[in-house]
Amino acid sequence: MAGEEGFVVTPYEVRGRIDYDRLRELFGTQELSPAILDRLRQMAGGDLSPLLTRGVYYTHRDLPALLDLYEKGTPFFLYSGRGPSGPLHTSHLVQFEMCRWIQSKFHVPMYIQITDDEKVWARGRLTREQTAQWGIENLVDLLALGFDRRNTHVFFDTKSIRAMYPLAVDVAKRISYSTVKAVFGFEPSTNIGLVFYTALQTVPCFYPSWKTGRSVPCLIPCGIDQDPHFRVSRDIAEGLGYPKPALLHSKMLPGLLGERTMSTTGESKDNALYLNDSPAEIDRKIRNAFTGGRATVEEQRRLGANPEICSIWALWKTGFAKDDKEFEEVTRDCRSGALLCGECKERIQSRVHSFFSVHEKAKETVRSWAEELIIQEAAAQV
Amino acid sequence: MAGEEGFVVTPYEVRGRIDYDRLRELFGTQELSPAILDRLRQMAGGDLSPLLTRGVYYTHRDLPALLDLYEKGTPFFLYSGRGPSGPLHTSHLVQFEMCRWIQSKFHVPMYIQITDDEKVWARGRLTREQTAQWGIENLVDLLALGFDRRNTHVFFDTKSIRAMYPLAVDVAKRISYSTVKAVFGFEPSTNIGLVFYTALQTVPCFYPSWKTGRSVPCLIPCGIDQDPHFRVSRDIAEGLGYPKPALLHSKMLPGLLGERTMSTTGESKDNALYLNDSPAEIDRKIRNAFTGGRATVEEQRRLGANPEICSIWALWKTGFAKDDKEFEEVTRDCRSGALLCGECKERIQSRVHSFFSVHEKAKETVRSWAEELIIQEAAAQV
Repeated sequence: MAGEEGFVVTPYEVRGRIDYDRLRELFGTQELSPAILDRLRQMAGGDLSPLLTRGVYYTHRDLPALLDLYEKGTPFFLYSGRGPSGPLHTSHLVQFEMCRWIQSKFHVPMYIQITDDEKVWARGRLTREQTAQWGIENLVDLLALGFDRRNTHVFFDTKSIRAMYPLAVDVAKRISYSTVKAVFGFEPSTNIGLVFYTALQTVPCFYPSWKTGRSVPCLIPCGIDQDPHFRVSRDIAEGLGYPKPALLHSKMLPGLLGERTMSTTGESKDNALYLNDSPAEIDRKIRNAFTGGRATVEEQRRLGANPEICSIWALWKTGFAKDDKEFEEVTRDCRSGALLCGECKERIQSRVHSFFSVHEKAKETVRSWAEELIIQEAAAQV
Repeated sequence: MAGEEGFVVTPYEVRGRIDYDRLRELFGTQELSPAILDRLRQMAGGDLSPLLTRGVYYTHRDLPALLDLYEKGTPFFLYSGRGPSGPLHTSHLVQFEMCRWIQSKFHVPMYIQITDDEKVWARGRLTREQTAQWGIENLVDLLALGFDRRNTHVFFDTKSIRAMYPLAVDVAKRISYSTVKAVFGFEPSTNIGLVFYTALQTVPCFYPSWKTGRSVPCLIPCGIDQDPHFRVSRDIAEGLGYPKPALLHSKMLPGLLGERTMSTTGESKDNALYLNDSPAEIDRKIRNAFTGGRATVEEQRRLGANPEICSIWALWKTGFAKDDKEFEEVTRDCRSGALLCGECKERIQSRVHSFFSVHEKAKETVRSWAEELIIQEAAAQV
């Protein structure tokens, strides 16, 4: 997005203080209105994910049409992906927790893409062996969130390429260099792998339709920064005879150091809680985390703190509060000055430890499943 | 190549009257000198392919170094490819006949690449199903030339992609968009498949080295117009730790209609003898073919004809003369005026019929072998 806005949001760069309303206008996405949220709650049997109630997800493309089809008996599938450039951190889990929740309520298939090829192309220092290794580790972390064993599929790019490639050929034929240059801001020095890559990222959007010969709608929960990727997919969908993927966009999460986003400032390990951090590292990072607190205790007791800019509040918001009641309590006490930052940090430390410990156990139960899930069959159409 | 030379030679365009000496200078390739030809003859047990004695192949890159290694006990492998956009014509067979001859004398492995993906990307009207279908038909035609059954391998891009892709990822990382733009003359409207494609065309150059972990030299007989493709491969070889492929370049062959090349003016079916042409079509095309004859019989008897520009003479030269003696006889009688074009055409018609009939029978013996040959194993390194 244009620099004149004072912020930049592309799939490869997020910079500046993002004005989310303006970003929605610029991207042309639709507001996730109270009416849509009510409809989702109803369809989900009266429950609604905290990621939806708390505004972590805030815009969409074509969600109501997708829900219409679902109600008429055409279920959609979920698609999300991970570029395995290193260990996951807690913010990476947000998209997948959104998917898990939707899958658990709507009983729909989930497709996870592990883009080990892309990360070789996008990160000069990473080798194929390294991204493949991280790919397996990341996949185990994601599956440990609790996806439906009978309804989850994995594209692991270098391992699933035989199944994906024929469709990627059809997709790539319809995307020009000038399109990817404009969307991703590629330079002449960009390698030809990265230029090609968006074709492979589009494959899962259409794969179930291609394989079954029926029109299978796709829903992609993703960070708003990934919207341009899938605009390309949406633009070519009709020409290939497949439905346009619907999108559900989250805001970017602030890093522990107060950066605007965790995922694009990943060079500082202290900016996020990585799933392979030790308990001592977690404690240290949380102790040093940027908050919305005041300069002195006295001032904070008097004026209250500002959760909106606080990296710890973002953690409560995206999953570490045990329920809406606790989240509202924390938020209220933060604003009023009743809850000081030190106390708040101590409380969340124990929540993070217990999440990490449960997660570690869950990983062991899915490790062998991970390898089984990787789609390796050849496409019948070849 | 620069338009100011009065001709253009790129992998996607051949235009104008090519000055081959100038082209060799411009490309920076080495002359296939009498000394190198003598050495090849000696190493081949005293025999030399007519394609070498008659100057169809005329330049090279690094051939002597490749022969040095061979003599010291490090055999090379051969690599050639076919973009399956339709039926093969007789000129397409020239590169593969060169390979077959080298394989028969040097007992080295042959890798054939069928680029069904590239032709989808390069030809707007062709679908993946069509190029895959032509790919099988073309492969059968090529194998019918008589490759060594124990020493021949096939990359069929969409079918072999699982084996090729990991290496393609490493290759693509080292090739920038600006390089392929300069080499192939791509436009902003070029699709991202074609931009990526040169990575896959490079894979066979390094595949045996990658799979074995040893340095296995590669020899690529190809039309001089394909040299830029492999210059890209040569440029990145060292960085990946693989040997630079050696090249053996042929001149472009004139089409039956007197065009400079058969392969790049393929829109007119009358410009070439396709392997699926009927005997009547062959006769008609040869009857109408452009020759180096004179305006009248009297003039031709008196002044002789010009074989250098004759499409029929190119056929004699590239394989339809039964031996050097006959080829020299035809050439001499053409030049002297003793052989008129009509008689010459009748003689070659029967040769072409008999070649086509032998070839048709040979195809039936290799059809089931073709499918078996396609490399489908996963790369162990993934």
